[in-house]
Amino acid sequence: MPAEIIDGAAVAAKVRAEVARDAAALATRGIIPGLTVVLVGDDGASAVYVKAKEKACHEAGMHGETIRMPASTTQAELLAVVDGLNADPKIHGILVQMPLPKQIDPQAIIRRIAPHKDVDGFHPVNVGKVLIGDSDAFAPCTPWGALVLMQAYNVSTAGKECVILGRSNIVGKPMASLMVQPGVDATVTVCHSRTKDLVSHLRRADIVVAAIGKAEFVTGDMLKPGAVVIDVGINRVDDATAKAGYKLYGDVHFPSASEVASLITPVPGGVGRMTIAMLMKNTVRAASMVLA
Amino acid sequence: MPAEIIDGAAVAAKVRAEVARDAAALATRGIIPGLTVVLVGDDGASAVYVKAKEKACHEAGMHGETIRMPASTTQAELLAVVDGLNADPKIHGILVQMPLPKQIDPQAIIRRIAPHKDVDGFHPVNVGKVLIGDSDAFAPCTPWGALVLMQAYNVSTAGKECVILGRSNIVGKPMASLMVQPGVDATVTVCHSRTKDLVSHLRRADIVVAAIGKAEFVTGDMLKPGAVVIDVGINRVDDATAKAGYKLYGDVHFPSASEVASLITPVPGGVGRMTIAMLMKNTVRAASMVLA
Repeated sequence: MPAEIIDGAAVAAKVRAEVARDAAALATRGIIPGLTVVLVGDDGASAVYVKAKEKACHEAGMHGETIRMPASTTQAELLAVVDGLNADPKIHGILVQMPLPKQIDPQAIIRRIAPHKDVDGFHPVNVGKVLIGDSDAFAPCTPWGALVLMQAYNVSTAGKECVILGRSNIVGKPMASLMVQPGVDATVTVCHSRTKDLVSHLRRADIVVAAIGKAEFVTGDMLKPGAVVIDVGINRVDDATAKAGYKLYGDVHFPSASEVASLITPVPGGVGRMTIAMLMKNTVRAASMVLA
Repeated sequence: MPAEIIDGAAVAAKVRAEVARDAAALATRGIIPGLTVVLVGDDGASAVYVKAKEKACHEAGMHGETIRMPASTTQAELLAVVDGLNADPKIHGILVQMPLPKQIDPQAIIRRIAPHKDVDGFHPVNVGKVLIGDSDAFAPCTPWGALVLMQAYNVSTAGKECVILGRSNIVGKPMASLMVQPGVDATVTVCHSRTKDLVSHLRRADIVVAAIGKAEFVTGDMLKPGAVVIDVGINRVDDATAKAGYKLYGDVHFPSASEVASLITPVPGGVGRMTIAMLMKNTVRAASMVLA
């Protein structure tokens, strides 16, 4: 029996509806949640993504704005913009779009963002709070979105074997932090490029989270029958027959994996749809903390 | 062939000698590394431990002092002491001894310690930096000491299966953070009270780190032959025949485990000997960062 396919767009729409409702409630108390995205340079993919974030803010009744800076921006100039946003009471969330031009150290920028406005969840304070399990942590949007997808489909996680492929600071590590917490309670294994027998781990996994950036790496024969498969990979593969000149593939080979899994995310239309929704959610949380 | 027994005292002595050398080098530049331990109340075990810390500081040529406060201390009073130490340029490391009396929220205290003086490594900023892999992180002393023990015995960790029993914020989680980093490169699994088949994980582990607080839980028949066994447990078990009225046991059943493992830590005399040594090391690092 082929796997049920997780509808990322539907779950994201539900999260956005909650966000819009929360934003409306805050508005009655005089607070319009505000998100500023800072875009440095003219990377095409980043520009598209940033536009989508601004649109999502407006649809949710939030204040969303984008600050565009040239590719020649210095680190000092960007830090000054971050300082201004940290001090601006109308702005509750700050996101500096990555990647940054090479003259700017991304860690220096991330550490400068006020932790209570760090809706992207990459400041060390928030990374630490997520691992500790603090309720006021901002979790990074993509792994949190992956967890919310599982919860939306009533995936049982307690005592389940969760195998995470990839140990990036953006996905693999924070995903492990989220899955091991009391309340989620998965038994978590983090695999990576140095792991010796990746397939033996995959074959015992009840839940697989793939985030290694290798197109169609995980095939159906590597999976335990009935596994839940969450594909965080978004890989561009050149394809002359495609209008854009490329096609998007996940880290999972969908045709074979969907024959073995019980539940699976597609790419696109899966985890990728959740990222902006969770960013909105974090921004509304940041705004509501002003009242606390 | 019975396992080689890790000599925690010898490795700790080596670390302390390095610390003394680094402290002497700092002294020639006018900096005496200083550690203040704050002890609230009159828990007997804590008092013994705090005295050992002060003595270790003096032996390493460092400034070590203990502030003793009554069990009736309020949270505001303790926060004021922390603020004073944060502002004191002679003090490079601050450690508030746990547990605290119940009227004080430990998280509020930990978060108040200046992260660059948090030599215990429990501030969320340091927890996050350890997970991210930042070189200026202060790692918590016990799991870091466990890793240093492995390194002292040339344990190969890259690509090895490391199974951690326990997900506490003090040992299990930071141990996982350390073992998964590039350079250490273990494939890490975190098991805990909700894990379904703990023994199957233990049986495939090249490295076992036991930190669940159950006396002699891990027995030899649960281990893979040749495994490296690091026992972080320190459990008091009542024993009328012992002078103190109790005996100390690890989380590992030493007699049977040492017949199967290739390398094993005893309790006492293993990981426990490392904690204060790593605390000294963090304090010297904190002092040297003043120069940077």
